[in-house]
Formats: sequence, structure tokens, C-alpha cells
Amino acid sequence: MLTDRLIGEIIQKKNPCIVGIDPEWEKIPDLYKQTAALAPDVVFQWAADVIDCIADLVPAVKPQIAFYEVYGADGIRIFQDIVAYAHEKNLIVIDDSKRNDIGNTARAYAYAHLSEDGPVNADFLTVSPFPGTDSLAPFFDAARQNGKGVFVLVKTSNPGSADISDALHPSGIRLCEWLADHLNRIGQTYAGRSGYSPIGAVVGATFSKEAAGLRKRMPRNYFLVPGYGAQGGTAEDIVPCFNEDGLGALVSSSRGILYPHLSAGVSPRTRTQYQENVRQQARKMQREVYQALKRAYQGMAY
Amino acid sequence: MLTDRLIGEIIQKKNPCIVGIDPEWEKIPDLYKQTAALAPDVVFQWAADVIDCIADLVPAVKPQIAFYEVYGADGIRIFQDIVAYAHEKNLIVIDDSKRNDIGNTARAYAYAHLSEDGPVNADFLTVSPFPGTDSLAPFFDAARQNGKGVFVLVKTSNPGSADISDALHPSGIRLCEWLADHLNRIGQTYAGRSGYSPIGAVVGATFSKEAAGLRKRMPRNYFLVPGYGAQGGTAEDIVPCFNEDGLGALVSSSRGILYPHLSAGVSPRTRTQYQENVRQQARKMQREVYQALKRAYQGMAY
Repeated sequence: MLTDRLIGEIIQKKNPCIVGIDPEWEKIPDLYKQTAALAPDVVFQWAADVIDCIADLVPAVKPQIAFYEVYGADGIRIFQDIVAYAHEKNLIVIDDSKRNDIGNTARAYAYAHLSEDGPVNADFLTVSPFPGTDSLAPFFDAARQNGKGVFVLVKTSNPGSADISDALHPSGIRLCEWLADHLNRIGQTYAGRSGYSPIGAVVGATFSKEAAGLRKRMPRNYFLVPGYGAQGGTAEDIVPCFNEDGLGALVSSSRGILYPHLSAGVSPRTRTQYQENVRQQARKMQREVYQALKRAYQGMAY
Repeated sequence: MLTDRLIGEIIQKKNPCIVGIDPEWEKIPDLYKQTAALAPDVVFQWAADVIDCIADLVPAVKPQIAFYEVYGADGIRIFQDIVAYAHEKNLIVIDDSKRNDIGNTARAYAYAHLSEDGPVNADFLTVSPFPGTDSLAPFFDAARQNGKGVFVLVKTSNPGSADISDALHPSGIRLCEWLADHLNRIGQTYAGRSGYSPIGAVVGATFSKEAAGLRKRMPRNYFLVPGYGAQGGTAEDIVPCFNEDGLGALVSSSRGILYPHLSAGVSPRTRTQYQENVRQQARKMQREVYQALKRAYQGMAY
């Protein structure tokens, strides 16, 4: 079961933090670039270097497909190759595509991203719930059939996330709460020995108080927590996304890990030096999050 | 301006109906298939045949990217080629991808799908609003900069669409109404000589009463109306999506046009025969919708 494997990795590596593999061309160190123009072929090299230097530190990676779609079909080929490469390194892969549609279209997306004989074959897929809960069912079905997981947007990390997630459902609770209750119900029928379900929720690191309430409503659904670092979420902010056992959430960072040379103002001179910098950032995040959890919770499983 | 060109095509062809180019492998006539397994290379041939036989009838086509993503990178290459092929045939292309994300990720999607130097370069992109109105801004900006359009999901055609779109915004109106007001405001700053804006809305054909209210709230935003035919929407149902001039909406059908052999129970024997069947379905839909509009509205512009 996926969550059991995920939790095993988190405990062994003492790390619930993951890294987004987001190739923003203009931010990739110059040493990778032969030309100034977009070059899909070097993106794989860059991404593989990142994966190599963090594979023993993190339980999972999260490639964001938008940053591959900018290269068109070539980019999707690299996306598929990156998923496969991360799998070779025994990493769990979260395909951050926020797909959404209804009926047979949702089934096509689920096949493309979560089926073992499909082109991507990721472990988790992020999905967006606007078309309603019936539109989520094909993704849940695919996850169950293939031993995969889904993270449904519940509360995103941007300032405007309240526009929709805080609207009132006819039942009298806010949409994010109503979605949480729905995921809690579905998750109860699909969970591992750990009790945790891979029918998960995206809950932004930037809304600490919200997170506490959502955690209570869906205590055993895994959370994917974006917004750490570059978007303003701190180690203290993400504590309420976790349970007392220090489990139940994955904290994700991309820019803060991948592009330290931008804030440092000094470009790495070699691939090895770049990898050392990235690894240092990943370790720093792990330390901050782990220490914050240790301070908050007595019953940490790791 | 995109809406002016679109309206010119609608008036000239006397047709506000468009066709979804959705290659569902198991539904494509056997005559196209050399093997039972998915074969991306024949998908282009099939799609080009469909486009050839309807290009003089419809103002636009709407490829749904999910049905290309199932073939992975090869499918995305075909998707890009189909968009280019439709452009060669002077068709407007609606890239039905329902993308959604925040900040620089939304900007990456907008570049990939709506930029002239990006890999897709569609005319319109469908987007999903769950992350909030700030997440839509990069798509609107890209549309404005590149002379393109966006259709935002407001009310989808599935039974469960009410889950989220009917929730109450803090301002006291339903989310679909609140989104409509937002699109109306944005659309007023980006419209063609016709007065119509390509900052559009997806409004399902299956919710006729809703459509009338939404039409009033955003009289000059173009509507994309899915759910005709196979999903249950009738010609009478879609009338309230239009204005008195018979403009303001595009009615889309996919399965009902593409796969008449499934309901007929007889497979076409030749590509020409298949094209005749598809063309017949497209003409039938055009007739039904045009007649319903003529019955309802005196002031038709065509």
C-alpha cells in the first residue's frame, strides 16, 4: 500500500519534506545551458542531477507538469523520463498536474497519469475539484485499482484561495471543510496498515489555522503542503498539518531548494557544486521542519 | 480581435456549433486501425479526416487534451499538430485543457498553451477556477497580450457541478454568479468591436435555467457550452445561453458528431464514408441549434 511505503521512507529518512522538480529555464544555472533559448534536452540532465543529490534525503519528488508543458511534446517526454528516473532511485513521485474534468475525460486523465500501462505511471496525481465530487470519482477509482494516490486541492497557498474554498456549501460549512469531509469518507474505504489513506488533500502552508481544522476533519488522509519557503510558509506554520506522530503530511518546496544561487547572487561553477548547494538547501529544510515537529509533538514516529 | 473573427465565421457559416476532436481509441472506426493497441500515428490521420469534412461548416474545433495525454509525449505532438492543422484550415482552436494553478505555474501553463512562440499556440484555453481569481489573472494577461481567449469553468454540465458552483460566496451570491460578475468586469476591459469579450465562461447545456441567469450577469462574455447531445442537452436547452442576436455562445459536441457508427451499429467501410457520416451529424446539429435560435430570437445576426 502506497501510504505504508511512503511512511516507511519518511521514518527511515526522518524527513516529511519533498522537492518540486520544476525546470524554470531562466532560473537553471547557466553552466547547464549551451544556448540562451529553451533547450529541452538539457532539462533532463539538470533534473537528474537534482534527483541524484537528494534521493537519499527525501521520500518523494514532485515534478510540476506546467514547467514541462512549456517545451511541448519534448517536455512531456522529459516529464515521463524524470518520473521513470525518480522511480529507479526508489523515490515516490507526485505528478503535480491538477487535472480536472468530468466522466470519460476524467477517466482519460486518470489513465494517462495513474495507470501502470499509461505513459506517466506516477504514484500520486494532484487534481482540482471545481467540477464537483462526481468528477473526482474516476481519479479515486484509478488510484484504488492501481495502488496509487490522489491529492485533491482543498486549500491552496495563494492569497486568493479563499475565493472558492471559503464559500459556504448548502450544508452550512465552508467548501474546504465539506471537501475534507468527503475525502475523509472516501479515505476510510482505502487506507494502508498505517491507517493513512492516499486519497489526500492539498493544504497550503500559508494557512496555518485552516490547516488545524482541516487536519481534524480528515485525520487519516495524507496532506500535500505547498507554499513552504519561497511562498512564505515557515516550519511553525506547517506543524498543524501533521498529527502527533509527525505523519500525515508532506511539505513541498521547489524554488527555495532548486535555485539557491538566485538569492546568493553567485552562480555555481560546476554541476557538483550546484548539487552540493541543492543538497544543503534540502537538508536545511529537513532540519527546520523536523525540529519544529519535535518541539510540537511528543509522539513522533521518527 | 478574436471574438470579431469568431463572430465573422459564425455569421458566414450560420453556425455557432463546434466539434470536439476527442480521439477515444476504442470508438475510432476500425478501418483506421492496423492494430488493436493504441497507435498514436493513426490518431492524426483520423483527426485530420474529421477536420477536413467539417472545416467549411463550423467556426471552431475543440480538441480535449486528456484524449491525447493518454498517448504521452506522442499524443502531445499530435495535439500540437492538430492545432496547427486546424489553423491551416482557418479554424479557430479551443484548447480544452482546464489548466489551473497559481503564480508562476499558471504563467507557465499560459505560455505553453496561449503564447505565439509556445508549443501549442491555441486561440482559446479552458481554465478551472478553484485556486481563486488571482490564479486566473496570468491566463487573462496572456490572452490580452497575445490576442487570445480564455473560457473559465463557471457551471459544468455534469450532475455534480452544483457541489462547488452553487456554494454561497461570502457576498451572498452563488459562486457561479460571483464568477460571472468577475468575468463580466474583466471582459469589459478586453472586448472586440462586436462588444463581445474572449474572456469567456464554460456553462453546461444541461442547466438551461442557470444559463439564463448567467447570460444576464455577463451579457458580453463568450460562452462555451458543452453537454449537447450525448450528455443530454437539447437545442431548446441551449437557447438561453445566447443573446437576441444569436451570438454569445459556442455549442460543443464531441461523441455525438464523431462516433455515429456506435449508435447506428454499422461501421463505415471507407474513410470517405466515415467523413460523410461525421459531416451529416455536424449538419444535423447545426440545423437543430439554428432552428431553435430562429424560433426564439427575432434579432438574429445571421
